[in-house]
Amino acid sequence: MIGRLVIVHLAMFLIPRCAISQTDIDSTLLHRYGDTVQRFLEIGLREGQSYHMLKELTTVAGHRLSGSEGAERAVELTKNLMLGLGFENVHTEQVMVPRWVRGSVEECLLMDLKNHRAVPLSVCALGGSVATPEGGIEAAVIEVKSFEELASLGEAARGNIVLFNRPFDPGKLNTFESYVGAVDQRSRGAIEAAKVGAVAALVRSMTHAADDVPHTGMMNYDEEIPRIPAAAVSTRDADSLSVLLHQRQSVTLRLTLTCQTLPDVPSSNVIGEIRGSEHPEEIIVVAGHLDAWDKGTGAHDDGAGCVQAIEAVRLIKSLGLTPKRTIRAVMFMNEENGMRGAKAYPIAPERAGETHIAAMESDRGGFAPRGISVHDDSVALQKVRRWSVLFERLNAGTIQMGYSGVDIAPLKERGVHAFGLDVETHRYFDYHHSDNDTIDKVNPRELELGAIVEALFCYLVSEEGL
Amino acid sequence: MIGRLVIVHLAMFLIPRCAISQTDIDSTLLHRYGDTVQRFLEIGLREGQSYHMLKELTTVAGHRLSGSEGAERAVELTKNLMLGLGFENVHTEQVMVPRWVRGSVEECLLMDLKNHRAVPLSVCALGGSVATPEGGIEAAVIEVKSFEELASLGEAARGNIVLFNRPFDPGKLNTFESYVGAVDQRSRGAIEAAKVGAVAALVRSMTHAADDVPHTGMMNYDEEIPRIPAAAVSTRDADSLSVLLHQRQSVTLRLTLTCQTLPDVPSSNVIGEIRGSEHPEEIIVVAGHLDAWDKGTGAHDDGAGCVQAIEAVRLIKSLGLTPKRTIRAVMFMNEENGMRGAKAYPIAPERAGETHIAAMESDRGGFAPRGISVHDDSVALQKVRRWSVLFERLNAGTIQMGYSGVDIAPLKERGVHAFGLDVETHRYFDYHHSDNDTIDKVNPRELELGAIVEALFCYLVSEEGL
Repeated sequence: MIGRLVIVHLAMFLIPRCAISQTDIDSTLLHRYGDTVQRFLEIGLREGQSYHMLKELTTVAGHRLSGSEGAERAVELTKNLMLGLGFENVHTEQVMVPRWVRGSVEECLLMDLKNHRAVPLSVCALGGSVATPEGGIEAAVIEVKSFEELASLGEAARGNIVLFNRPFDPGKLNTFESYVGAVDQRSRGAIEAAKVGAVAALVRSMTHAADDVPHTGMMNYDEEIPRIPAAAVSTRDADSLSVLLHQRQSVTLRLTLTCQTLPDVPSSNVIGEIRGSEHPEEIIVVAGHLDAWDKGTGAHDDGAGCVQAIEAVRLIKSLGLTPKRTIRAVMFMNEENGMRGAKAYPIAPERAGETHIAAMESDRGGFAPRGISVHDDSVALQKVRRWSVLFERLNAGTIQMGYSGVDIAPLKERGVHAFGLDVETHRYFDYHHSDNDTIDKVNPRELELGAIVEALFCYLVSEEGL
Repeated sequence: MIGRLVIVHLAMFLIPRCAISQTDIDSTLLHRYGDTVQRFLEIGLREGQSYHMLKELTTVAGHRLSGSEGAERAVELTKNLMLGLGFENVHTEQVMVPRWVRGSVEECLLMDLKNHRAVPLSVCALGGSVATPEGGIEAAVIEVKSFEELASLGEAARGNIVLFNRPFDPGKLNTFESYVGAVDQRSRGAIEAAKVGAVAALVRSMTHAADDVPHTGMMNYDEEIPRIPAAAVSTRDADSLSVLLHQRQSVTLRLTLTCQTLPDVPSSNVIGEIRGSEHPEEIIVVAGHLDAWDKGTGAHDDGAGCVQAIEAVRLIKSLGLTPKRTIRAVMFMNEENGMRGAKAYPIAPERAGETHIAAMESDRGGFAPRGISVHDDSVALQKVRRWSVLFERLNAGTIQMGYSGVDIAPLKERGVHAFGLDVETHRYFDYHHSDNDTIDKVNPRELELGAIVEALFCYLVSEEGL
């Protein structure tokens, strides 16, 4: 009998696990939401507005680094878009933002003294860099692949320009991993170079692509360390410099940058929503960031995320759905060089009486969605994973642990469940922070589908809770 | 006791289903193949040759419609590539192919009689079309969206040029569904138009994109029906014509095509392989088609599939694996307008003593792979689905029923398990059969990853059987 009892108990244990398994959950969800998913898909693909809005944003506002006129045009434009679409509670929330301005001159000349000529390299200042002294900096260049290698050079680096030339590792499936493995060169290169007495930092562009386009992005200084200028150089020119350095005893560059940091200026986050019918005080944020680097027009980074957030709310409205909770599109200002909007949002006076239950951000480009990354505990993962069957109908059924977004990190720190729209990553860094990031690189269907996934996610959170 | 016995029996039934479930299979597979998958991924992404080979194919061979010099250059090139990579049994198998040649003139003028001018539209002849009489065909155009609408016009269509203008349905998730929903206009438009006495067929290009590029592709005639010329028109011009037809009583076009069909000529399938160590007579085919339309350079359709097939075999060799069964790359000739290579392969004398156990084709462009479509019964689906955990490591874990490929259809008819490489489909028809299908539309990483998925699939079939 004991054997049988064990089996009986085992059965009691197994039956609920197996029999109420995902199959039953799936059929309940499909019964409840199957038609809605299909409507999101068809109406979103047939009548989606994301691409049209992105065209407006990238032409009317153009590039829009925090504090620029373009950024203020983007604030006005997205606010008016939301008003025009009949969103509720449309308003801006002011924040002070840093204002770094690219100079009219950014030049790096390879001084070919033997042949009496100077060959220009493809460079651009990194965001936040100081200018060079007038007339530029002329110095020999040395190449390193890591901070360790730089430190080991000791005094040999003094007075030189340091070329940080560790490429992206192409062997990673997710290109963000390649980025994370290389971006320390951009963010800390100037600090580490200055520590050993170098006069400037030149950083290989953060991309897999072999081309002639420099990619900008944020760099940092340390208050204890002298501030030296820092520029990105295209991957092709970085490779050429490397070859040259192996051929010659010495290679001299002249770097000239006229960028500058001006006093902070006021700017804004932009907000609009559809009010919850049962729990209007419970907020689900769907976000992008409105600022973009002053190269290209920020079509993928993060124009895509902004228009998708607006479109997600628009879609829910246009389907005539009445979500139980408030679904709020937030365009954060200043993600790229300060996070001022992201930091201000959770503590703004407007938050009084509000409870945020989830935040989702799209900030990996307007590429084909793969699913949702859950920046949270495994319980949240399991909860959202239950909905996979619905997202699979959008080719976006991959629900896994992963990063959410920079702008919603301060919300996450305050205990809000945070999610990221997961997309195909192969092409992102071909465009990221460069003149390549323009709307012709965005496929309208891929962009709209991302918005559809966000709309469904927000709606499910609204109806099912987390 | 009966109640308990029922539970006991239920338990006996449930335990095997739940306990030997996918989790155990997964851990066995990961133990056996996890390292191999990782090596495929890293070596395939770091040292992959697909993109380099595609560059050669699209530049050295260029466009390569069956019977053209480009096609013969493609035969030579891929044969030499496989020889150079040390493939075994490298050879060509001759087939006779049709030879249709685009004329030097393909023009469609919108005759603006009032303003004494003629406005050229963006058109190209459809593959297989007859020429117009010398001097072209001048006739009024009528627009229809379906064959039913055309038939209902009756005599009203006689003497006219018929514009088939039903667009792609954007509401489909998979763009191949949109294609299937519109392509009858291209394949049968000339037949249906001739049936009602029309003098030519003009077909809206098979694409979601709104642009000025006409997309060619195969069209058919019926032996019982007069052969009238047929051309594709760009989506923008199709839309403009439609607007004009709603504004004016009559719109006249003059269509001139000088294309022609010449006698059949010899061409070849190209074959190379890695011989199986235990069952060399058991063949796993990995395929693409070597011919491409004479617009663009067939980078996605199907240069991608060809170089991925070669790369899949190369990868398996370069990892030092010794597959039990033979893995064979086959470049089929003449997929686009006759399937002669596909039909000849299964009945060629070289097949004597061979048993084909699986065939996979990549013919949906070199886009990010999503998984494998199983063109077979549900047993085969279940078998391949067991391997999902391995393909998930390549972001390609979607294993579902679906089409395989045109070239391997004759193998499938003979009972061979058939599979297709499933990829993101959003961008395919932006390029398909048009001047847009060039290598700059191919992302190297997405292309290589497709080859990696094929390599893994072939290797698993070789080791695990089906």
